[in-house]
Amino acid sequence: MKAPFTSLAGFRAVFETLPQVDAEAVEAATARNETLTKPKGALGRLEDLAIWYAGWIGDGRPALERPQVAIFAGNHGIAARGVSAFPPEVTVQMVANYRAGGAAVNQLCRVAGASMTVTELELDRPTLDFTVSPAMTEDELVAALAAGWEAVDDESDLLVVGEMGIGNTTAAAAIAAALFGGTAAEWTGRGSGVAGSALEAKTRVVAEGLELHADALSDPLEVLRCLGGREIAAMAGAIARARVGRTPVILDGFICTSAAAVLHALTPSALDHAIAGHVSAEGAHPAALARIGKEPLLDLGMRLGEGTGAIVAINILRSAVACLSGMATFAEAGVSGG
Amino acid sequence: MKAPFTSLAGFRAVFETLPQVDAEAVEAATARNETLTKPKGALGRLEDLAIWYAGWIGDGRPALERPQVAIFAGNHGIAARGVSAFPPEVTVQMVANYRAGGAAVNQLCRVAGASMTVTELELDRPTLDFTVSPAMTEDELVAALAAGWEAVDDESDLLVVGEMGIGNTTAAAAIAAALFGGTAAEWTGRGSGVAGSALEAKTRVVAEGLELHADALSDPLEVLRCLGGREIAAMAGAIARARVGRTPVILDGFICTSAAAVLHALTPSALDHAIAGHVSAEGAHPAALARIGKEPLLDLGMRLGEGTGAIVAINILRSAVACLSGMATFAEAGVSGG
Repeated sequence: MKAPFTSLAGFRAVFETLPQVDAEAVEAATARNETLTKPKGALGRLEDLAIWYAGWIGDGRPALERPQVAIFAGNHGIAARGVSAFPPEVTVQMVANYRAGGAAVNQLCRVAGASMTVTELELDRPTLDFTVSPAMTEDELVAALAAGWEAVDDESDLLVVGEMGIGNTTAAAAIAAALFGGTAAEWTGRGSGVAGSALEAKTRVVAEGLELHADALSDPLEVLRCLGGREIAAMAGAIARARVGRTPVILDGFICTSAAAVLHALTPSALDHAIAGHVSAEGAHPAALARIGKEPLLDLGMRLGEGTGAIVAINILRSAVACLSGMATFAEAGVSGG
Repeated sequence: MKAPFTSLAGFRAVFETLPQVDAEAVEAATARNETLTKPKGALGRLEDLAIWYAGWIGDGRPALERPQVAIFAGNHGIAARGVSAFPPEVTVQMVANYRAGGAAVNQLCRVAGASMTVTELELDRPTLDFTVSPAMTEDELVAALAAGWEAVDDESDLLVVGEMGIGNTTAAAAIAAALFGGTAAEWTGRGSGVAGSALEAKTRVVAEGLELHADALSDPLEVLRCLGGREIAAMAGAIARARVGRTPVILDGFICTSAAAVLHALTPSALDHAIAGHVSAEGAHPAALARIGKEPLLDLGMRLGEGTGAIVAINILRSAVACLSGMATFAEAGVSGG
């Protein structure tokens, strides 16, 4: 679907008229859940997940059949500062790997029964080094938000957004520090595997960015423009599109959470349609999830990005929905109630 | 496969010659994992799971294609003491629900791509009330262990065991207290939903059983015979069969863990082929898992039994195996290493 905005003001306006969860579907799902052949509450969090999903899909007995994994790739000016364990050309190499089916995300999508789209965001034109200037112009940011918005398949009944972009945990750390406060060191982590003096250098890059753009950081979209990246903006655009279309979202790791946090800072209800798929091994992820009020489903020590943690969580949500919609009631099964 | 024992002595002998994990497959999987297109260790626990699975299956690049969920149902003499929120006839009613496809386990097996078998263990002949006499005779225990052993499909490449039996968290609590020590109150929980004075009565039943059989409880199989139930013994028999056949196992909740703990008490290596699928909301489950040295994959507040928590974990293991076996290497994909 064509993005309904051509400026940051237009994107902001999206959040003034967000649709609400379908209260009737929530009520119907809640009532049905009470009648199913199990002790009350015995499916634990699966019951909450299924009712949440029913509300956003707008069906008290929903199906989950067409999950979409939308991967966005971008390159970062700050990658030239040596903030990653990998060289910048890995971004485009990994995109080729996605298209050839060889990455983790390909295997996980198959297990999750999810379709996968890959959107390359001007890989030959990295963002600018945010320690020198804003990472993006306003036009570039709007284009990236729109690319994310338009990557969402309107037929999907679940969205996961993932990313690839050498240097993007640095950008995500800067966004988190700008939105949540605290020092660069609190939000800067190992990413793909930096440690020691390399981690110190990465932290200094984040601190320099925060200092240079200090006057602009009270506006979440300026945070995204000055410190973010195209793939991070595209993730935010896709999550926003899903919110407007009431498509449930499973959030992935630290970078995805930083993208989502920009929307949360615009208005907290922007993420009511989203759950956290997992907490990653990136050190600041638990704190970032806490700031946006999300409790992760999984804690497997993953730190790969590409949407991988969220994709593993898809089958948990699918399990929840299958129980709500597929189980017999006590009356149907002739089972004596408790 | 016909059980290779007709006595408890014969069952004990099984644990004297347990096969080992395939060290070559572990080595091959570990080496392959290092070459895959991701930062080292970035798939976190998924990497450990895949290598563990490779070792037990005996293939450094394994597939996971034929998971089996084996459900066992039994009735308990102590159910007459009002230890459950549900009446005893629910056991046979729920078995009918399994066969009709209406239970949680049916929906979850479909999502997990697992086959399901249901074994009824003399439902019209409950075990004896363990506050009055041993729950089973030696012949009855051997028959239940053998039924579990024989329910395992030798073609399965993963086993989950689940149970149904009104009153069986009471039996599981008694087993846990006998094996691990501590008071009845430490191991007795809400089960399908008892609280207040009903929970106190349930705890007293456990304490009475422990006192009556105190002299027999130094032998794990006597613990199982005096305090257990047929479905709990069958789960132990099935887990033992999988151990001998090197079929990986995902353990479910508190009752399954109590069954597994009997084998662990015979010899700790009896559970080397098993991981914990989840930690349940039954209060003593975290402690029981700690005693058998297992770290759960999921923590979703489930407390349904039927194997449900373990079944939700199947797709996590499947995801792990899919990444190990399906991902491209850095060399294959032409991606620059870190």
